Amino acid sequence: MTDVQPIACTPPEADPSTFGFAFCEGGVCAAKGIKASGTHAGFRADPNRLDLAVVAADEACVCAGTFTKNQFCAAPVQVSRARADVGVARAVMLNSGNANASTGEQGLKVARESAALLAKELGCPEEQILVASTGVIGQQQDLAPYVEGIPGAVAELGADNEHAHAAARAVMTTDTVPKEVSLEGTIGAKNGRGGRVVHVGGFVKGSGMIMPDMATMLCVLTTDAPLTKRSAHAALLQAVRSSFNKVTVDSDTSTNDSCFLLATGEAGGEPICEGSEAYKAVAGALRVAAETLARKIAADGEGATKLVTVDVLGCETEKDADTVARSIANSPLVKTAIFGHDANWGRVAAAAGKCGVSFDQEKVDIDLLGVPVLRAGMPVEVDEDDMLKRFEAPEVSIVVDLHQGSESTRIWTCDFTHEYVTINGDYRT
Amino acid sequence: MTDVQPIACTPPEADPSTFGFAFCEGGVCAAKGIKASGTHAGFRADPNRLDLAVVAADEACVCAGTFTKNQFCAAPVQVSRARADVGVARAVMLNSGNANASTGEQGLKVARESAALLAKELGCPEEQILVASTGVIGQQQDLAPYVEGIPGAVAELGADNEHAHAAARAVMTTDTVPKEVSLEGTIGAKNGRGGRVVHVGGFVKGSGMIMPDMATMLCVLTTDAPLTKRSAHAALLQAVRSSFNKVTVDSDTSTNDSCFLLATGEAGGEPICEGSEAYKAVAGALRVAAETLARKIAADGEGATKLVTVDVLGCETEKDADTVARSIANSPLVKTAIFGHDANWGRVAAAAGKCGVSFDQEKVDIDLLGVPVLRAGMPVEVDEDDMLKRFEAPEVSIVVDLHQGSESTRIWTCDFTHEYVTINGDYRT
Repeated sequence: MTDVQPIACTPPEADPSTFGFAFCEGGVCAAKGIKASGTHAGFRADPNRLDLAVVAADEACVCAGTFTKNQFCAAPVQVSRARADVGVARAVMLNSGNANASTGEQGLKVARESAALLAKELGCPEEQILVASTGVIGQQQDLAPYVEGIPGAVAELGADNEHAHAAARAVMTTDTVPKEVSLEGTIGAKNGRGGRVVHVGGFVKGSGMIMPDMATMLCVLTTDAPLTKRSAHAALLQAVRSSFNKVTVDSDTSTNDSCFLLATGEAGGEPICEGSEAYKAVAGALRVAAETLARKIAADGEGATKLVTVDVLGCETEKDADTVARSIANSPLVKTAIFGHDANWGRVAAAAGKCGVSFDQEKVDIDLLGVPVLRAGMPVEVDEDDMLKRFEAPEVSIVVDLHQGSESTRIWTCDFTHEYVTINGDYRT
Repeated sequence: MTDVQPIACTPPEADPSTFGFAFCEGGVCAAKGIKASGTHAGFRADPNRLDLAVVAADEACVCAGTFTKNQFCAAPVQVSRARADVGVARAVMLNSGNANASTGEQGLKVARESAALLAKELGCPEEQILVASTGVIGQQQDLAPYVEGIPGAVAELGADNEHAHAAARAVMTTDTVPKEVSLEGTIGAKNGRGGRVVHVGGFVKGSGMIMPDMATMLCVLTTDAPLTKRSAHAALLQAVRSSFNKVTVDSDTSTNDSCFLLATGEAGGEPICEGSEAYKAVAGALRVAAETLARKIAADGEGATKLVTVDVLGCETEKDADTVARSIANSPLVKTAIFGHDANWGRVAAAAGKCGVSFDQEKVDIDLLGVPVLRAGMPVEVDEDDMLKRFEAPEVSIVVDLHQGSESTRIWTCDFTHEYVTINGDYRT
C-alpha cells in the first residue's frame, strides 16, 4: 500500500551478548552462594499455594535495594529501606497474601519480628534480613504464619533450579506465570584467556498495580560477582531505571514495590568497582536481567493478551520522551484498541498530545505494528487487513517520532481487557 | 460498627439558589434570542441518526470559547479558537461522526468552507461562525454532508425545547443520553422589586476520551444576560475551571474539546461587567450549568454504572489537591473496585500516595461511601454488608483529608467496566 519506511528503532529484546553474557538456567540461584525456597506458611488459606519465599546467601554479603516512592509505603518497605542502606544482608524474605501496608505501628512491629524469626533460624543479626510483602492493603498482618513457616522455609533452602522456581512462585498474586531470569558470562578475560565466570539471577512478581517508581514490584536479583556496596547500589539503580521504572500495567504505583540485589562475591577475584570494564559487563548483565523481567511483567499484566512496546523518539529531553511514552502506554483508549485489534492510531496521537509536552503536530511520525500510519502529521493509507494479521503476534510495537530533538525512551505495557476488569472488579473474598 | 464521624464536606450537587437561580425548561434555547436545530446531514450512514447541530443567535452576539490543550488539536479547534478570540459570533455548528483531527491542511480547508456555507445561509460574515467536530481521529472530513445538510439545518432552526433537544442529540457519539441544562433567575432586583429575568442554557457531549484540559468535550452554553465580551470570557473560564476541567472518564484529553458561550443580551438592560452583583449572579448560574453538565458527563462515561465524586481536602496547595484527586479518579484499580462494589479503600490510599504529592501517611483520613475507613493512617473497622448496600446508590463518594493544609478540590469520574472495554475494543467499523 505504501512506500513509506518504518521509523528506525532498536530491537525490542535486549541482547546479553553485548556485555559478554548469555542466558542460562538457575533463576535466582544461578549466582554461586545463593539458596532459595518457596513454601506454604499460611498467609493464604489454600495449603497448596506457596506464599513464603526466602532467598539466602551462604554468608552475609553485599546488598542494595530500591523501593516505592508511594507516600503510603508499606511496613516492610520502611524496615528494608533502612537496612539496605547499610549494604550488608544475609537474606530476603517475601510473602504473598497480605501487603502489610496502611497498617501503622502494628504493621512495623510484625515486619521487624518476622525478620527476627528468620535471623534466629539462620544464625545472623536481624538487621541482615530484608523483608517484602504483597497482597491486600489495609489489613493487619498476622505473625503466626511466620512462626509456623520460617523453620520449614529455612530447612527447605536449596541451590538448584527447582528451589529458585519455588521461590519465584511463592510471591505470585494475580501473576499467571513465575517470572525468572539467569545469565552467565566471563569478565576480565584477555585475548579470550583467563577471566572469571560470573552469574546474574533473579525473579520478580508483578501483574497489577504496576507503574513502579524508582523500584519495581517485588524483585530479587542476585550475582556472584564481587561487587562493592557502592558498585552494587549503582548497578542496581542503573538497571532499574531503564527496566522496571519503564513498565506500566495500569499506572498504579504500588505501596510495596521493592527490588533487592544480593552480591555474594563467590565468583572470586578482586572487588569490582564502578567504572571498570568488569563493572560495565556485570552492570550490563544486571540491566539485561532486569529488562527481561520487566518485559515479563508487562506481558503478564493483569488480563493482558499483548506485550506492548512504546518507543518515543526525537524529543528535546528524556523527561519529555518519558512523559509522552507513559501517556500513550497508560491511555485506556490506546490499550482497549490494542485489545480489540483496532489500528486506531488516532488514539496514539491524542495520547501523545494530551500530556503537556510541547511539539509541532505537523512534524510527527507514527508507526503502529511496524507500519507507518502518520508522516509529518498527515495520515498514511494503510492496509487494514494487513494490520489485522499483524495484530495476531504476541507483541505490539508503537513508535512515535516527534522530530523536536534527539532524546528517546522505551516503555513496556500491555493491553486493557475484560479480564482486567473481572480480576479487579471481583470482591476481595 | 464505629463512632468515627464522616469527614465534613459540601453536598455533591450544586445549588443554583445560591445565585438566585432555579432550573427550568428549554435547554440551549432557554436563553432568549437563541434558536437551535439537530438534523441528519450524512456524516453517519444511519439516516435516522442526527449528526449536525446548529445553535444560532438571532443576531451577531457576544461569544467566548475555551479549547483543548492537546498538541494534536483538531482543524475546527484551530479555526474556532481564533474566531472566539474576537468575541463576536452568530452561530456554532457541530457535527458528530468525524473529528477532523490529524487531517493537516485539507482538514482546515474543510472546516473553513463548512463555516462559509453556514454563514451564507444565515447571511452573516463567515468569521462569525464557530465550528466543532467529534468522532474518529485521522480521517479526512468530507464537505458533501455540509453542502447537503446546512440548508435543512437552518430551515429547521427553532427556539423551543424540542429543537434544543435535537441539537443536544445530534452531537452524541458513545453518549447514551443527551446532556442539557437550563436555568432562570432574576438579577438586579432591590427589596424583591424590579430586576431582569435572565436565562442560562446549554448542552454538552462527552463520554469517552474525557479529561478536558481548560475546556470540555463539545459544549454550547447560552445566556440572554447582556455580558460584555470581557465578562463573557471571564465567566466562561471560571465556570469551566471548576466543572469540565474537573471531570475525567479515562484520563484521555481529546483533540477536539471545545466549549462555547453565546450571550445574546436579549434579557435587556445595562451591559454586565466583571465584579458587579449581576456578574456574580450570572457567572454563578453559568458555573452551576457547567457543573450540572459536567456531572452528566461523568455519569454517562463510557460503560459507567456509577457517578464517582472524589473530594480531596487538607492540601498545601490547590494543585496538590487536584493532583491527588486526579490520581484517585484515574486509577484503574479504584475504578474497577467501584464497579465490583468492593470497598477496597487500600487502592484509594495507594493512588493518593503514588502521584508525587508529599504527605504524612500517619495523618491521613479516608471516607468511602460516607463511611470512615481510615483515620490518622490506621484502618477503621467497617461493616462490609453495610458497604455493599451503600454501593447500590447511583453515586459513590470518596473523601480524602491529607491534613497538610487548607486547600481542597472536587473531581468527578465514573467506574471502569467491561462495557468500557467492549465499547473501545470494538473495531472502528
